[in-house]
Amino acid sequence: MAFDGDDTLWHNETRFQLTQAALRELLRRHVPEADVDAHLAEVEMRNLRIYGYGVKAFTLSMIETAIQVTNRRIPAADLGVILGWGQKMLAEPTELLDGVEQALREVGRRHELLLITKGDLFDQESKLARSGLAEMFSGVEILSEKNADAYRSVLRRRQIKPDEFVMVGNSPRSDIAPVVAIGARGVHIPYPLTWHHEHVPEDSMPSEGWYRLEKISELGALLDSL
Amino acid sequence: MAFDGDDTLWHNETRFQLTQAALRELLRRHVPEADVDAHLAEVEMRNLRIYGYGVKAFTLSMIETAIQVTNRRIPAADLGVILGWGQKMLAEPTELLDGVEQALREVGRRHELLLITKGDLFDQESKLARSGLAEMFSGVEILSEKNADAYRSVLRRRQIKPDEFVMVGNSPRSDIAPVVAIGARGVHIPYPLTWHHEHVPEDSMPSEGWYRLEKISELGALLDSL
Repeated sequence: MAFDGDDTLWHNETRFQLTQAALRELLRRHVPEADVDAHLAEVEMRNLRIYGYGVKAFTLSMIETAIQVTNRRIPAADLGVILGWGQKMLAEPTELLDGVEQALREVGRRHELLLITKGDLFDQESKLARSGLAEMFSGVEILSEKNADAYRSVLRRRQIKPDEFVMVGNSPRSDIAPVVAIGARGVHIPYPLTWHHEHVPEDSMPSEGWYRLEKISELGALLDSL
Repeated sequence: MAFDGDDTLWHNETRFQLTQAALRELLRRHVPEADVDAHLAEVEMRNLRIYGYGVKAFTLSMIETAIQVTNRRIPAADLGVILGWGQKMLAEPTELLDGVEQALREVGRRHELLLITKGDLFDQESKLARSGLAEMFSGVEILSEKNADAYRSVLRRRQIKPDEFVMVGNSPRSDIAPVVAIGARGVHIPYPLTWHHEHVPEDSMPSEGWYRLEKISELGALLDSL
């Protein structure tokens, strides 16, 4: 049994969206008419290829957006504020979702638990350490991208057969579709917010090989029924 | 046989120092009297705990330094230039050190090769992909910190005994001392430049369990003599 971290075990997207709201607010003072969200999304997508995922990438993209939408008129003090938001995000305590500890304990009695996350290595390791959950996992994999090849190589390295592997996560694109594609099973537990990059139209999802739960506390019952 | 990447297989520190020289130059125009190097070093060390290593961390620390030493008087356009330097560093081709390909090919005929690097996951994977060396390694480990515990866990996970393990790298602090501490051997190949954080006084190095070569092309002969 493997679990995604961000927005599956602990809150993540909420923090990004709160920070993005603060950026909108800050930039409104300089350029009331700018579409900050659209511009930031464009900068993030352009930078994904060189920055990858995570708070440091997000901070750099916010600074780039702020410089561009203000046509380089933003004062350095305001850019310093944005820099500080990033540092605050990186130092905040890891806030677990409801029922996570109990669900992991319950499932961990009968299955070996892996954590498979995507993103910035340092940031993810630090979040896991701050979560208090580290000792529940027999292994941790931090991938730069969660696609079928990446999952295949994790399973090969750990000598796990696809039909014995179940992945639990909030992202259809990263946690469910690629896992089903390699012959393993997925459990989708949606988080109320999804980053635009992770959106997948419902009708493009695989027709079988995965389940959807409302909350992680229902996981034990689902596994019993399989 | 495991190899470090940065400044062992490909140039890295040279690029950081060239960018840092450009930062000094840029800031001199605003604050001719500032000690940019000292300030940047202090900011980098303070941020290491939340940012970890790598180009994104370096870029954020350069921006923070620029804002602070100019007392927030630096124009956004100049901060945009610094942002661009980071993006350029991330997109540049990976430039191999002399003799690397041949040495890896020679050693790889008799030993299994691992790459063990420290730093930003996305950046390191991307550098390896751009290096053309990826298929020579049977495994890649990207660690957030290279200490004895981290090496111990790599060896345990890969079922390698310490006395069968040799680590080759340019950093006494990251590639040699922790490896010798766990009972394996190190081969130190100095790079002309060392980041201040990686400096180790010569007399604090272990007295045995490691070798020093001038260049990677001497590796085959050393291994024959062991």
